Amino acid sequence: MLLKFPPSVPDNQKRDLTSQILDWCLTNGVVFENSDKPGNGLNVPVTLFPTPFSRHGYKNAIELQVLYNSLYHAVFKHPEFVIEQLSQLKEDEFTMKLLSIYENCSKRRTQNLTGGVFRSDYIVDKSRNSGEEGRQIKQVEFNTVSVSFGALSSKVTELHKFLAETAKTSVHGEVPVSKSLRDIAKGLATMHSAYGCQQAILLFVTQPNETNVMDQRLLEYELYREYGIISVRATLEQIHRKTTIGEQNRLIFIPTGAEISVVYYRAGYAPHEYATAADWTARERLEGSHAIQCPSIMTQLIGTKKIQQVLTKPGVIEQLQPNLTNTEIELIRKTFVGLWPLDETDLGKEGQKLAMQSPEKFVLKPQREGGGNNIYKKDIVKHLENIGHENWSSYVLMELIDPPKISNTILRNGDLVTGRVVSELGVFGTVLWDIEANKELMNNQAGFLLRTKTQKSNEGGIAAGFGCLDAVLLLSSR
Amino acid sequence: MLLKFPPSVPDNQKRDLTSQILDWCLTNGVVFENSDKPGNGLNVPVTLFPTPFSRHGYKNAIELQVLYNSLYHAVFKHPEFVIEQLSQLKEDEFTMKLLSIYENCSKRRTQNLTGGVFRSDYIVDKSRNSGEEGRQIKQVEFNTVSVSFGALSSKVTELHKFLAETAKTSVHGEVPVSKSLRDIAKGLATMHSAYGCQQAILLFVTQPNETNVMDQRLLEYELYREYGIISVRATLEQIHRKTTIGEQNRLIFIPTGAEISVVYYRAGYAPHEYATAADWTARERLEGSHAIQCPSIMTQLIGTKKIQQVLTKPGVIEQLQPNLTNTEIELIRKTFVGLWPLDETDLGKEGQKLAMQSPEKFVLKPQREGGGNNIYKKDIVKHLENIGHENWSSYVLMELIDPPKISNTILRNGDLVTGRVVSELGVFGTVLWDIEANKELMNNQAGFLLRTKTQKSNEGGIAAGFGCLDAVLLLSSR
Repeated sequence: MLLKFPPSVPDNQKRDLTSQILDWCLTNGVVFENSDKPGNGLNVPVTLFPTPFSRHGYKNAIELQVLYNSLYHAVFKHPEFVIEQLSQLKEDEFTMKLLSIYENCSKRRTQNLTGGVFRSDYIVDKSRNSGEEGRQIKQVEFNTVSVSFGALSSKVTELHKFLAETAKTSVHGEVPVSKSLRDIAKGLATMHSAYGCQQAILLFVTQPNETNVMDQRLLEYELYREYGIISVRATLEQIHRKTTIGEQNRLIFIPTGAEISVVYYRAGYAPHEYATAADWTARERLEGSHAIQCPSIMTQLIGTKKIQQVLTKPGVIEQLQPNLTNTEIELIRKTFVGLWPLDETDLGKEGQKLAMQSPEKFVLKPQREGGGNNIYKKDIVKHLENIGHENWSSYVLMELIDPPKISNTILRNGDLVTGRVVSELGVFGTVLWDIEANKELMNNQAGFLLRTKTQKSNEGGIAAGFGCLDAVLLLSSR
Repeated sequence: MLLKFPPSVPDNQKRDLTSQILDWCLTNGVVFENSDKPGNGLNVPVTLFPTPFSRHGYKNAIELQVLYNSLYHAVFKHPEFVIEQLSQLKEDEFTMKLLSIYENCSKRRTQNLTGGVFRSDYIVDKSRNSGEEGRQIKQVEFNTVSVSFGALSSKVTELHKFLAETAKTSVHGEVPVSKSLRDIAKGLATMHSAYGCQQAILLFVTQPNETNVMDQRLLEYELYREYGIISVRATLEQIHRKTTIGEQNRLIFIPTGAEISVVYYRAGYAPHEYATAADWTARERLEGSHAIQCPSIMTQLIGTKKIQQVLTKPGVIEQLQPNLTNTEIELIRKTFVGLWPLDETDLGKEGQKLAMQSPEKFVLKPQREGGGNNIYKKDIVKHLENIGHENWSSYVLMELIDPPKISNTILRNGDLVTGRVVSELGVFGTVLWDIEANKELMNNQAGFLLRTKTQKSNEGGIAAGFGCLDAVLLLSSR
């Protein structure tokens, strides 16, 4: 039986709680930086209470991460398979450009190690099963590049645990703290250590005018405090000017002459980020260098929706990972929703038919990473008609997930908004792979993230102004 | 020999450093809160580099703290002495009102324990001695109420240590980290523990529209994290509405029914804070309750300039503390500058004469705590003439300290200002006294604070918009 949620709190207590949350955010770096006014920060939008989440689904998602990390390693081990799949997107210049850099660089590769900080995102689906125990998480996407909010999730879950324990918010249940800040830093430190040069530095590839800076800086400070590793930050444009290739293909940071051990991308996933030829030159220099890429281009590309869709096809997992047990395959497969290409294959034609006949059941997503460009329900038909048939294959059609009905209050820009919300659970993973030996040197689950949006907004991008950061509330089952 | 300071840094490196400092401040709570726009924070002004400070003076100030704590305990043990001194300020309504509450409450006192978080402030004086070893710190004031920046000082000293170690700021020397956040929290936890009720809560008395909130919240979070102690915050006006006296004179926080163990004042030191009768009623309720006052009214009153001035009179320390060794007395006395009352005593008449004849050597300070109301040099004569002779006795005349010539760059509101600076070192102390037994139950040094201002501004109040937070740089002596 679910307890009453959200707790009914009188207005003056809501004001106290709001003030406590805002102060906690400002004190603990849960802020976005105003890129126009240096030194100005604004609290990251958060929920007033942690949101109830299926205990079974939470446990399931956490346990699945190492299986998913391995599944994506299996994909990575078959570059010819990835290239074949992505070659179907040949009208997508961005993917084609990345593939060509991949091919150029793999010929002259000197670094056998490649890293990843991943996040697998899920929404609980209530339509297919009834009752708490039967609730099933469904995968929204698997992210392999520029995964964010690992550090801030640790902070926000700490905030909600603190409030539950001290502020008498009447929240009854367990509020787990995400160890993502510690664990992602540990993952990066493992990559640095594997590079084998303690005095080398780590390079954060960043976007110009980034506002979600604290989420990255927290990792930088953790890396220094816990491991003595120094990091620098640079945009692709700055990397073009400030790095060079030294002896033995080493990547050198010119201002200090330091060798770079790991290139950690918090940018570089979207076409608009490569505005000039210099940006592409920078990316190719990084990819072709001896520094460990986190992620390399191939790892970035296996995170496309195209690969996610192909993995749902019967037999594909079994073919990529013949050693998986039936139980493991079933665990993964249960998180899949229906996914169709919209190309001219048989499956693609089925997808086209579904999209036109029952669009209310689907969301249309661009093949690439990014967010913010999804098309929902009846808008799908109009959109497909507008873009012309020849561009349909750059989308995948995805079955909509039907989340449970929950209300909560979101605190954004000092205002409280109460209403129906949808929560998305992301689980982080860190990996290190040896390309030559085809081996997983590291495969870890690395904490989690709960993002919550009001049901009206379709996207959950927090930095973009929708949704907010949240914490998982595991209600007592009695 | 002093090394070149500040280091000459090219402009682009200064930009990088600025960006690093601003991000570090926003990530670690080194912000002032905008009281008009909840959830908005602005970085606290800081120096770009830690400022060189006499190693001898720094060591001296740290060591002196327990002696000063004890000296003020000796003053506290002689309330009749304090009352006699302060009765000379009978035209000061605020002090008289505090004294009358003290007298009312001491009759019905049930709590034998009283606490304090103190800060003794010093400036290095270069005029009286030459050479690094000979440099002497001179006491500016001894603060016994609403002492601030303990938490932020820990953060800013960590920042400068981090930058010195990672950002190649060319700062050569030692940058000690102040343990004030940890140590002040420990002091408050000791008071809480001495109260003897673990589930009781701590009350922070705060000012309305406070901007220096993070400095207080950091202590609150540390108290919870390290000791499991829950704190609440309330202004005097809120305390009037939200507290009551329960059984056995216990102070009760009405919203939760919790018993209050320690009343920690981050407010209540200035007349304008007692705008209504309710504010005075609130203060009297706190003072007369069983909760440990940090500080009690008597402890607050011994921090007046009047007492500081009286302590410099020959023989007074010896009379209050007959057990001090000559060495200890000498250590304390060396930090004194000349202090004169401006009353009708012999010493007061000497002060009046000095003020009119050689004002350029002096600063005129109100008898009370506060800051922001000091009058310097030739302005003294005009001021004294304006206020009328009958009001002279509410001031003390203090010899000016002549600080060493040092330049640094201050970062405020995103702008860099370079020039001559003056630094003031504050050393924190925590005490717990048993009134009946006349015993010191706790006497600790609790970290330090360096505040730096441009030489033009005469006041060092940071929250008020002058000056900035800084860290001590102990240069190598070779």
